[in-house]
Amino acid sequence: MATHPAARGLNDDAAVLDLGDETLILTHDALVEGLHFLPGQDPADVAWKLVATSLSDLAAKGAEPLGVLLGYQLGGDDARFVAGLDDVLSHYGVPLLGGDTVGNVADKAGSQVLGLTAIGRATHRPVPSRGGAQVGDALWLTGALGQAMLGLEALRSDQGDSLAYRRPMALLAEGWTIAPMATAMMDVSDGLLLDAARMAAASGVTIALDRSAVPIAAPEARRDEALRWGDDYQLLFTLPASTPSPVPASRIGQVIAAGSAPLLLDGVPPAGPLGFEHG
Amino acid sequence: MATHPAARGLNDDAAVLDLGDETLILTHDALVEGLHFLPGQDPADVAWKLVATSLSDLAAKGAEPLGVLLGYQLGGDDARFVAGLDDVLSHYGVPLLGGDTVGNVADKAGSQVLGLTAIGRATHRPVPSRGGAQVGDALWLTGALGQAMLGLEALRSDQGDSLAYRRPMALLAEGWTIAPMATAMMDVSDGLLLDAARMAAASGVTIALDRSAVPIAAPEARRDEALRWGDDYQLLFTLPASTPSPVPASRIGQVIAAGSAPLLLDGVPPAGPLGFEHG
Repeated sequence: MATHPAARGLNDDAAVLDLGDETLILTHDALVEGLHFLPGQDPADVAWKLVATSLSDLAAKGAEPLGVLLGYQLGGDDARFVAGLDDVLSHYGVPLLGGDTVGNVADKAGSQVLGLTAIGRATHRPVPSRGGAQVGDALWLTGALGQAMLGLEALRSDQGDSLAYRRPMALLAEGWTIAPMATAMMDVSDGLLLDAARMAAASGVTIALDRSAVPIAAPEARRDEALRWGDDYQLLFTLPASTPSPVPASRIGQVIAAGSAPLLLDGVPPAGPLGFEHG
Repeated sequence: MATHPAARGLNDDAAVLDLGDETLILTHDALVEGLHFLPGQDPADVAWKLVATSLSDLAAKGAEPLGVLLGYQLGGDDARFVAGLDDVLSHYGVPLLGGDTVGNVADKAGSQVLGLTAIGRATHRPVPSRGGAQVGDALWLTGALGQAMLGLEALRSDQGDSLAYRRPMALLAEGWTIAPMATAMMDVSDGLLLDAARMAAASGVTIALDRSAVPIAAPEARRDEALRWGDDYQLLFTLPASTPSPVPASRIGQVIAAGSAPLLLDGVPPAGPLGFEHG
């Protein structure tokens, strides 16, 4: 489907739509139980993640959320889902504008499917995209990677702190602050290496990462895993080389002329899978 | 879920959001195979209906579509779905802004779930709602009812013309024309009697329908069925009594002071179920 003209834009960057004096940012995500969240996971956490990850897409555009619309398939602990939905909408001060609740076919109930549309307004134009990185720019990353990786392990083993996996944060204020300066920006949802390669491809450049400069929250022995793990929702952005980051962030690489590979890690293309490709 | 504050607005009227000089109209619908479309139905027709019914929600607000976002779960004949999606988007000149494609869990594939968000801009403000009918207004209906009922029977029996069921039309131009004059407007998606009762309840009035004035496309013996069948997506609207309809339409009733029942049919509350309550 992804190659068909009508399907272009699916699973890509959030949509940008000029309307009157405003620019809208729109994103839609679907989650399938067993693919995108664990069967048996607390529905309150699923609701949080559904909303927060969409708000993270808005953050990467420097957008202020205006509201969300929910497509909810009944089938789990619906009261817990609503409790988590309340938590996340209250936390970010975002209204539930509408949506649809649907049931299941009695004899053919499968995995629960959830959909969320988030709509926001640009706080700065032009709106940052993943395609604007310029040769000579520096590459920056907010926060540390590997927190969600450790969080998922904690959740699965029922030992330790799983919060980073269960309730990721959308870095809205950081996005608004970075947007006026960034040449390119995106959130790291599928792993740093994969998402950096996507930024490079969209920008028509090569990105050269400095492996040891990337802050990780995991033990050093797991650095290569942490660089490939998603779900941390940190912001990845490029700035002109002489521009300091306006938010706490680490300089983790630079943008160079397009070479034979979109991504270099300490000077060579990284081996193996770059990250998590969503099904 | 419907009683919880966080869930308010789901399955209701489209959302209306003022933004700068514009007013946005937003609607999200989810369809489940086996509940909202037939298993084995041509995916091209499913795609058409998914989009057209959401555009009908915009039509009832007098809104001009700006685009749609799709949540697509793989699992049917995806190429046919894309073909139908192309058809309907081309027909209405509406862009696919984005969305998400997701898979299935291998051993737990259930009914396919689809989601669609449609976004539009108001062409007239205040935006018509279902809650504005005034005592003394006349009630009007575009077109005839029962076409989708006959169409579904044709599809199931593989005899006759099923187009009205498979490819309903969104009455966008009619909605734009009616919006500046209407005191209330909605589309008839779940049956005339049920939707008229909803309009009456939202407006705090009683609606008195003239049973024989409603145009039906079915044999006269099936009039009571046609008044309860949904899926025709005609526009139901109220105008001051002295205002003629600006589009071809039939005057089918009047708005009276709220009585013991929200809806009267030839002077008495209709017997039995009013229409189709979506699961």
